[in-house]
Amino acid sequence: MLKHIIFDVNETLLDLAALDAFFAGLFGDSRLRTEWFLTLQECWMTNTITGQYQAFGDLAQGALRMVAARHQVEVGDDQCQTLAAGIKSLPAHKDVHQALQLLNDNEFVLIALSNGALEALQQQLEFAGLTDCFEHIMAGSEISQFKPAVATYQMVAQRLGIATDQMIMVAAHAWDIAGAAKAGCRTAFVERPGKVLNPIGTQPDLIGKDVQDVAIKLCAGKL
Amino acid sequence: MLKHIIFDVNETLLDLAALDAFFAGLFGDSRLRTEWFLTLQECWMTNTITGQYQAFGDLAQGALRMVAARHQVEVGDDQCQTLAAGIKSLPAHKDVHQALQLLNDNEFVLIALSNGALEALQQQLEFAGLTDCFEHIMAGSEISQFKPAVATYQMVAQRLGIATDQMIMVAAHAWDIAGAAKAGCRTAFVERPGKVLNPIGTQPDLIGKDVQDVAIKLCAGKL
Repeated sequence: MLKHIIFDVNETLLDLAALDAFFAGLFGDSRLRTEWFLTLQECWMTNTITGQYQAFGDLAQGALRMVAARHQVEVGDDQCQTLAAGIKSLPAHKDVHQALQLLNDNEFVLIALSNGALEALQQQLEFAGLTDCFEHIMAGSEISQFKPAVATYQMVAQRLGIATDQMIMVAAHAWDIAGAAKAGCRTAFVERPGKVLNPIGTQPDLIGKDVQDVAIKLCAGKL
Repeated sequence: MLKHIIFDVNETLLDLAALDAFFAGLFGDSRLRTEWFLTLQECWMTNTITGQYQAFGDLAQGALRMVAARHQVEVGDDQCQTLAAGIKSLPAHKDVHQALQLLNDNEFVLIALSNGALEALQQQLEFAGLTDCFEHIMAGSEISQFKPAVATYQMVAQRLGIATDQMIMVAAHAWDIAGAAKAGCRTAFVERPGKVLNPIGTQPDLIGKDVQDVAIKLCAGKL
């Protein structure tokens, strides 16, 4: 039975809907949060494909300016800093604490792996009260790589001294599932609101309606 | 003076706003077209990063199903086929014919380069009445690569028997500018409605409000 579980953080564990009020205030439409996150993805994936690296926080602010320019709304440094602060103070989804506790109790080794910078990730987990649930906290910033680049998942395996096929990646993102599977990990997809798989893309080994559901299935030896 | 100009096709030359009625009919909001295109980008970029390849047309339909699932709207094969047909029958932006004619008259060599499959690209240009403007029509599908992978721009240079720094990439996409610049090309960004540069990303050598504006600047030797 696999005992090492890597968790994606933003959206999988932490609830970005907490930023809805910010987007509603700025654009008059909280749905622009989805467009912002997709634009942010475009930015970091473009960096990965072209072999460049910029900090996730800088890209998050750049993506906000792109969405603002697209919708002809003015944003300044103040709004960018409000967004940055908001990202660092997201609540956990309601099911997360109990789910991680269940996995801890069942002797799984939990690893948090984010595209956010390591220090920001540590702040996020601390704010959400999740730090103690994780044996390891790692970030793509440590090797200047973003998921879904296989190097990020390989970094985790190397540090743990195990093979990638000894790890399970849990994420609410289709691209994270695709990258982890390519790296050789087993995968579990979390069906958070608005998060969907690519029907013709890489399919996960397991699907849960939330992290609690995934945790119960993993404890039952479903992977 | 550089004489070889590569044109991105979707959005740069062809007007995807023609799909707005389709998205408005399906989702009650034509702005979902932007979310669909960003989701499509996520799909092909994930493929590039994980070293996989699927046809652009299949990804376009997959992305439609993802947006539909995200917004809890039912889509079937009929709607997917309507979208596919719509992509193959897009009109050119109003400034394009005259702009390409101006460049032809000034002895520039024009190349169309799309992430769409070669055959679909040929149909698109034929429908829009642009086929005769181009000396070369090329697609990432010929080497199973998507822009902004540098291999796509290098393919063009290799076929033309010139160096990448002898080519200008014209695109309304920040990621296309980034990829072409990484490959060594000069770049021109077209400020189509809703298309924006990443303020902290790769900056183009030239910016025009439309293709006509870019063409006039290129004829004036601005690059």
